[in-house]
Amino acid sequence: MASLQDSYQKLIATAKQVTVIQSASGILLWDLETKMPARGLEQRSEQLALLDVLTHKTITDPKVGRLLDGIEGDHGFADMDALQRRNVHLMRKSYEEESGLPQKLVEELAKQAAITTDAWKRGKMAKDFSIYQPELEKMLALRKESAAILRDIKGARTEYDALLDIYEPGMTVDRISELFATMRDGLRDVMDKIGSSDRRPDLGIMSRHVPTAVQRRISEAAMDLIDYQVRGRTAYGRLDETEHPFTIGYYDDVRITTHYYENRFTSSLFSILHEGGHALYEEALPREWKYQPIGGPCSYGVHESQSRFMENMIGRSPEFLAYMLPRLNEITNGMFKDVNKDDFILAVNAVEPSKIRVEADEVTYGLHIIIRFELERDIMSERLSVDELPQAWNDKYREYLGVEIENDAEGVMQDTHWSSGSLGYFPSYALGNLYGGMFLQKMEADVPQWREYVGNGNMAPVRAWLAENIHSRGSLYDPEELVRVVTGKALQVEPFLNYLDTKFSEIYDC
Amino acid sequence: MASLQDSYQKLIATAKQVTVIQSASGILLWDLETKMPARGLEQRSEQLALLDVLTHKTITDPKVGRLLDGIEGDHGFADMDALQRRNVHLMRKSYEEESGLPQKLVEELAKQAAITTDAWKRGKMAKDFSIYQPELEKMLALRKESAAILRDIKGARTEYDALLDIYEPGMTVDRISELFATMRDGLRDVMDKIGSSDRRPDLGIMSRHVPTAVQRRISEAAMDLIDYQVRGRTAYGRLDETEHPFTIGYYDDVRITTHYYENRFTSSLFSILHEGGHALYEEALPREWKYQPIGGPCSYGVHESQSRFMENMIGRSPEFLAYMLPRLNEITNGMFKDVNKDDFILAVNAVEPSKIRVEADEVTYGLHIIIRFELERDIMSERLSVDELPQAWNDKYREYLGVEIENDAEGVMQDTHWSSGSLGYFPSYALGNLYGGMFLQKMEADVPQWREYVGNGNMAPVRAWLAENIHSRGSLYDPEELVRVVTGKALQVEPFLNYLDTKFSEIYDC
Repeated sequence: MASLQDSYQKLIATAKQVTVIQSASGILLWDLETKMPARGLEQRSEQLALLDVLTHKTITDPKVGRLLDGIEGDHGFADMDALQRRNVHLMRKSYEEESGLPQKLVEELAKQAAITTDAWKRGKMAKDFSIYQPELEKMLALRKESAAILRDIKGARTEYDALLDIYEPGMTVDRISELFATMRDGLRDVMDKIGSSDRRPDLGIMSRHVPTAVQRRISEAAMDLIDYQVRGRTAYGRLDETEHPFTIGYYDDVRITTHYYENRFTSSLFSILHEGGHALYEEALPREWKYQPIGGPCSYGVHESQSRFMENMIGRSPEFLAYMLPRLNEITNGMFKDVNKDDFILAVNAVEPSKIRVEADEVTYGLHIIIRFELERDIMSERLSVDELPQAWNDKYREYLGVEIENDAEGVMQDTHWSSGSLGYFPSYALGNLYGGMFLQKMEADVPQWREYVGNGNMAPVRAWLAENIHSRGSLYDPEELVRVVTGKALQVEPFLNYLDTKFSEIYDC
Repeated sequence: MASLQDSYQKLIATAKQVTVIQSASGILLWDLETKMPARGLEQRSEQLALLDVLTHKTITDPKVGRLLDGIEGDHGFADMDALQRRNVHLMRKSYEEESGLPQKLVEELAKQAAITTDAWKRGKMAKDFSIYQPELEKMLALRKESAAILRDIKGARTEYDALLDIYEPGMTVDRISELFATMRDGLRDVMDKIGSSDRRPDLGIMSRHVPTAVQRRISEAAMDLIDYQVRGRTAYGRLDETEHPFTIGYYDDVRITTHYYENRFTSSLFSILHEGGHALYEEALPREWKYQPIGGPCSYGVHESQSRFMENMIGRSPEFLAYMLPRLNEITNGMFKDVNKDDFILAVNAVEPSKIRVEADEVTYGLHIIIRFELERDIMSERLSVDELPQAWNDKYREYLGVEIENDAEGVMQDTHWSSGSLGYFPSYALGNLYGGMFLQKMEADVPQWREYVGNGNMAPVRAWLAENIHSRGSLYDPEELVRVVTGKALQVEPFLNYLDTKFSEIYDC
């Protein structure tokens, strides 16, 4: 047993090295986006590439394979505690995934990703898919090649399943198809109901000019409210400004960014709640598991559930908005004095089918994701070819959202994900909403007064519930298993749909 | 010959890895001092420690030893070009230095450095050397142990020689003793001369209240003047605020910091010229040698020569100050309208023996360094013990500078260097002045109109001279050799002394 524990400790020490290198990379990436002088890019690329190589080398060291074999083959393995076995499982998974791909293919993927991303930028700028198409085809060919290898390693049914598993361990194309079919119908029902309402949001409220300096004070208030700490000795976060908001960090150093639009002040407010939701998750991971595989977040979708929970379920709730309106008036010296509570709530929650995913409201957002999922699935199974992609995109936008795409820049080229070969990523965004629906239902049972607390600007009970039920479980379970452990039920779409129906029926009085 | 070049390319690839890791560490250190949230320290220490280990492992990889043996033993080695042979020499040096120390000793040194630095802080705060003494003794014992090993590796005469060689390759205790004896007498002569002058600086000019916001505009002007670029697509630098100013960077990403004291505005102005001098050096290193050993700066002392050149020889020159005074009045809306040029020049260049090294003027500074050098030398040769250090310190301050040290916080505990075992570092500060004196003499011959240029706010000719003569030579020579290559003469003290004598005779009219 001593030698089993010995091997296990060596394995955990390797995992720590990987985590530490990755957290260092995170800071370098953050710096690249926020502080780096323009000319620093070449050096930074060298630094990031080398740290990637070192991570890869550390994970795929043959010694790691031997340690894993020894531990798993030991007669004492079955008696190790569940946390230790989960760590071994997660290490085995990353060892297999990272070792399986030939180094040459990894390098080709990285190189083609850079080339395709560049072609995407040029194509989008010129609104010309033909600039993008040949490089996207090369990227997808390489991605399929690597997905086929991953499929065999993981014993997945299809290549797309192997990719989905990277972002949402255990998720499959069949399971997502089933969930999304229900979600699509449900979202359409809510949209139809809202369409029948007489209430019309006054969007002018949202576009009032709020100077950046004033928005910065709103940001401070928002960070204080969710207790995301950026000042003094207890600070673990910081806020900076970038073109696109993001969160980067690990445990005691988790940084967020936002972007200030002077004629769209809610953009920064809700991006701070969104990124803050991500940050609270990282910070509340169990300290005793720091640097261990189980100490990481569960999945991309669960991470997204936490950001959307804070942004939408809390931040766009009537109770929170009713609390915020007078606070906004304090901070802005009465810029919204003439706005009544209900009009504010309706304007913030306006539902309107649109062309651009990142600008979509809470109801229509899922349809943007379903479109991407269906296209990815068909591309991967070769039912769809790259040259058919723009037309397929436009057809689905017409069918699901009722909007006419006028050019490929606002259509198939709006997102960057496919350029780097990140197929399988999009579903996580919508799965995050579904997980969030399940979590909300359970929180309502556990903390029935949560809306009252939020309405008084007291977010502590919500934060505590999330920390205790989700954050503290780190990477102990795959996402669907986590949902079951937290809620006692299998993942279902209905809680999310019910949440939307109840909320928007009230707001739209329909 | 093919296999020799093959081995050489492998060696250079290893050197690049080391440089890239170290440049990444630099960014993490910069972030620690400027942007990191308070709680991030534990993670950051793990990151920095791991990158140190990876650097050490990369340099000391037995493969490196075999490559070096193969290259140096190859019959074609003598015919390799001089640059390649210099790269091999520098790699051999770091391989020997890094491989020679037992891992256990390296770890003990790091651990004891942290403990001693902590004891130093507490001792300094309490003005009580007895808190510091036992930990300093342990630190010095470990340092001596490692210095003895380094002495054998390097074939140095004494242990202290082995340490000096880390910071100033090729420098010895005998050579420095000789240089510093001349410098000491010369500085005393200049001090005596100034002491005989009737002119008394009006220090009130220096302590006028200049708000931080205004000082920031002065900083912008100073950075523009020396063409240290912090904005837009050509930026390779940035300015941030820290307790103690520093420079961190490499080639295309070189960052400086400053500290604003509202009643000491020249502190930020001259710290920006000082750190800017460091930054210009890094940026102007030869691009074709980037990531190679010869592409680094020559030595600590040569680095310091560049910062002091810009801060003192240029920045505190009568010509630059005459140019700056009206600029200051523009920026500050006439805060110095009543000050005449000569009074300003005298106030900036006030000479007054003092207790604190970092506050010392250009003339007395060298004496602070000589005191530290003599004490380090005597500690290393065991002519002096740690418990005798405070008295020896105070005696030397009385003898060389004529000041009475009242407690050990302003005496022997004022600097942090010894706490981390960095004996041998102090001399570089003064050697930087001596190198600077040699360089200035040559620049005056090459660019006789330099004072006129500087007086018109045109720093380009000075920058170009430094870049061409010093920066572009990277690490091609050891420092004394560099001085000879640049000036055609052996390193001498007189040019620095002559510079001081001429400058201060004029300013003090003596």
